[in-house]
Amino acid sequence: MALIVQKYGGTSVGSPERIGNVARRVAGFQAQGHQVVVVVSAMSGETNRLIGLAREIAMDPDPRELDVVVATGEQVTIGLLCMALHAAGVKARSYTGSQVRILTDSAHTKARILNIDEAPIRADLERGNVVVVAGFQGVDERGSITTLGRGGSDTTAVALAAALRADECQIYTDVDGVYTADPRIVPQARKLDRITFEEMLELASLGSKVLQIRSVEFAGKYKVRLRVLSSFAQGGEGTLITVEETQNMERPVISGIAFNRDEAKLTVLGVPDRPGVAYRILGPVAEANVDVDMIVQNAGHDAATDLSFTVSRGDLGKAVKALEAARGEIGDLVVETDSSMAKVSVVGVGMRSHPGVAATMFRTLGEEGINIQMIATSEIRISVAIEEKYLELAVRVLHQAFGLEQIPGAGEGANHR
Amino acid sequence: MALIVQKYGGTSVGSPERIGNVARRVAGFQAQGHQVVVVVSAMSGETNRLIGLAREIAMDPDPRELDVVVATGEQVTIGLLCMALHAAGVKARSYTGSQVRILTDSAHTKARILNIDEAPIRADLERGNVVVVAGFQGVDERGSITTLGRGGSDTTAVALAAALRADECQIYTDVDGVYTADPRIVPQARKLDRITFEEMLELASLGSKVLQIRSVEFAGKYKVRLRVLSSFAQGGEGTLITVEETQNMERPVISGIAFNRDEAKLTVLGVPDRPGVAYRILGPVAEANVDVDMIVQNAGHDAATDLSFTVSRGDLGKAVKALEAARGEIGDLVVETDSSMAKVSVVGVGMRSHPGVAATMFRTLGEEGINIQMIATSEIRISVAIEEKYLELAVRVLHQAFGLEQIPGAGEGANHR
Repeated sequence: MALIVQKYGGTSVGSPERIGNVARRVAGFQAQGHQVVVVVSAMSGETNRLIGLAREIAMDPDPRELDVVVATGEQVTIGLLCMALHAAGVKARSYTGSQVRILTDSAHTKARILNIDEAPIRADLERGNVVVVAGFQGVDERGSITTLGRGGSDTTAVALAAALRADECQIYTDVDGVYTADPRIVPQARKLDRITFEEMLELASLGSKVLQIRSVEFAGKYKVRLRVLSSFAQGGEGTLITVEETQNMERPVISGIAFNRDEAKLTVLGVPDRPGVAYRILGPVAEANVDVDMIVQNAGHDAATDLSFTVSRGDLGKAVKALEAARGEIGDLVVETDSSMAKVSVVGVGMRSHPGVAATMFRTLGEEGINIQMIATSEIRISVAIEEKYLELAVRVLHQAFGLEQIPGAGEGANHR
Repeated sequence: MALIVQKYGGTSVGSPERIGNVARRVAGFQAQGHQVVVVVSAMSGETNRLIGLAREIAMDPDPRELDVVVATGEQVTIGLLCMALHAAGVKARSYTGSQVRILTDSAHTKARILNIDEAPIRADLERGNVVVVAGFQGVDERGSITTLGRGGSDTTAVALAAALRADECQIYTDVDGVYTADPRIVPQARKLDRITFEEMLELASLGSKVLQIRSVEFAGKYKVRLRVLSSFAQGGEGTLITVEETQNMERPVISGIAFNRDEAKLTVLGVPDRPGVAYRILGPVAEANVDVDMIVQNAGHDAATDLSFTVSRGDLGKAVKALEAARGEIGDLVVETDSSMAKVSVVGVGMRSHPGVAATMFRTLGEEGINIQMIATSEIRISVAIEEKYLELAVRVLHQAFGLEQIPGAGEGANHR
């Protein structure tokens, strides 16, 4: 008998019929003798409807009151799912975030979980109940309702799994696992049976929207065994996200290829080459709440240099404005922009012990005539900025170059030299 | 400076625009120096939408979980109204039933209020906040969300007014007060400035849907000064519902005329005239959850008698079935039914000291050729069952016979002899 925390997202509970399907799946797990805690999101579309109502009243609604309104989405789902479980002959009991109680700080709309009182849930499980908990929400010390921000239901599930020392935390979603690349771009993409937390974090931060990044961090920190599965397909094993690297010696060097389409590049020309200038350029950009991603400073010629950096395409205007406002302070700068950039990344813990990955990546792209404009690396990731029109081609040729379509151990492994 | 509790129903908060109107009205009261507590219902249609979702999942949903789902309706409104108050420049803070905390028993979907902790609300008022409370809901001792049943927002408002010892409890609705009769039937009907709790209770129980009957009982019991006003018209004084009878010596004998359209009559013929038979007939009807209203037993001839009673028209089938099922026990009874009945009532505390009211009523109806089929009375009410087709005529001629179109003291008063 295991204790399993399962999380079902908005699409999985998007209609009464789908809620019935979730109930039958949960009933099946309980029939196998497992104790089950279910975390649910709001029915798909509901959170946006509620935010829309709020925005009709105030452009910038009070965060405390916005949380009061938005938290009702998940509250509706927990009640409906319990009804569906009763209809399936299963004892079930619902909990809002404040009923659990999931104590958070008071940072409304983006609160952080401080503590979970798992005792009432454990008591309910012992009585043979399935426990259904509203995701995405908690309560602060003063009793005000808080929300964890978008995607926070994943975090609720992982935090509950940690507090209950659950055997596994299963995230049900509309994909059946984590893939080596987006199957819409690479038809040969293969579902991964396992991936490490570090790799998952890199993939999530690069725009693979399978799991919310905070929940992966949380799971890594508290060593929660995390699994991503499809709530629509039956019987799949999904992808297990683990702390330990796989025992398989034939493990591939690269686990997956991620990309981010909406990038823009800014290049500031003729920057005076003296200490503190990079901060004086990037400081105003950060203050304008624009996240800077890749940064490259070219080798200076004479007393001047060029500084390039990328931002989200939607933030390009804000970034340019921030630079113009700072012009007086830094001097007369020329700013060039390119809003048709994309980022492609290869991710894998195996590259720690295989130094040839960057060379394989750059050669493969070069052979296709794809110019690399910027490069950034972490210990387990190499990212390049390229022109967006080459994005699909780049992902496909890299997928092939690293042999990702092959099941590890079944063939020659990665073919990089 | 006064402390006022105001309640706005579903129609009054039916859209973001209307919520904005309520906010401006509340802001106006606060600007006059009053402390204001606002109780709101779910936006019109929302409660039915939520119940509909539940019914798609389960025919007879678990009451605890139904309350979890339905209580979200008011929770959305409190958040939205606070946002609108902020936009109007007013400090405001929302409370769900469990946040207040409004402690109830555990009778889910029809819970009764046991206690209200008014301290946090009072502290918020002292800080200059408008306090916005979700109507219709509370929390039981175990922390489960409860609801008070349909119309329960009125009860929340009155209970809060009692707990806070408020100067007045104002119920805003889509009518501008209590009328001497339904103005759609009697164009001369006049808005009453005052009415007693007893009269209001009789009117409410007779289908005048201005106030929920429980809230009137509650207000009477705790001597809460209650006022019904329109949330759409500006500046009206509405109708004040008071404990004390008016000081005006010219007070009319009758305050209003109420009616109920959907009545049905059952007559059981040839009932053996012996003790316990009425119970054996009406017992099975009550057990089938059918409310019996008026009951008349005719004078017996020989050893048999006729028993007539009225039920809601929608319950007629159930009542007949219950009688058929009991036939074996009571003997071979003939049951006649008439599903086109209506009930008309005259209500007024003045009839205690004016014994001629019944005579005036019967004579007036008789003069119009309207046959009275059944009669029932309380201390301040006389009701008659008549054929439905005479309903409008009966209400109009009684309204005139009791001089209700005239302002009390301005003319000859009631003209009954």
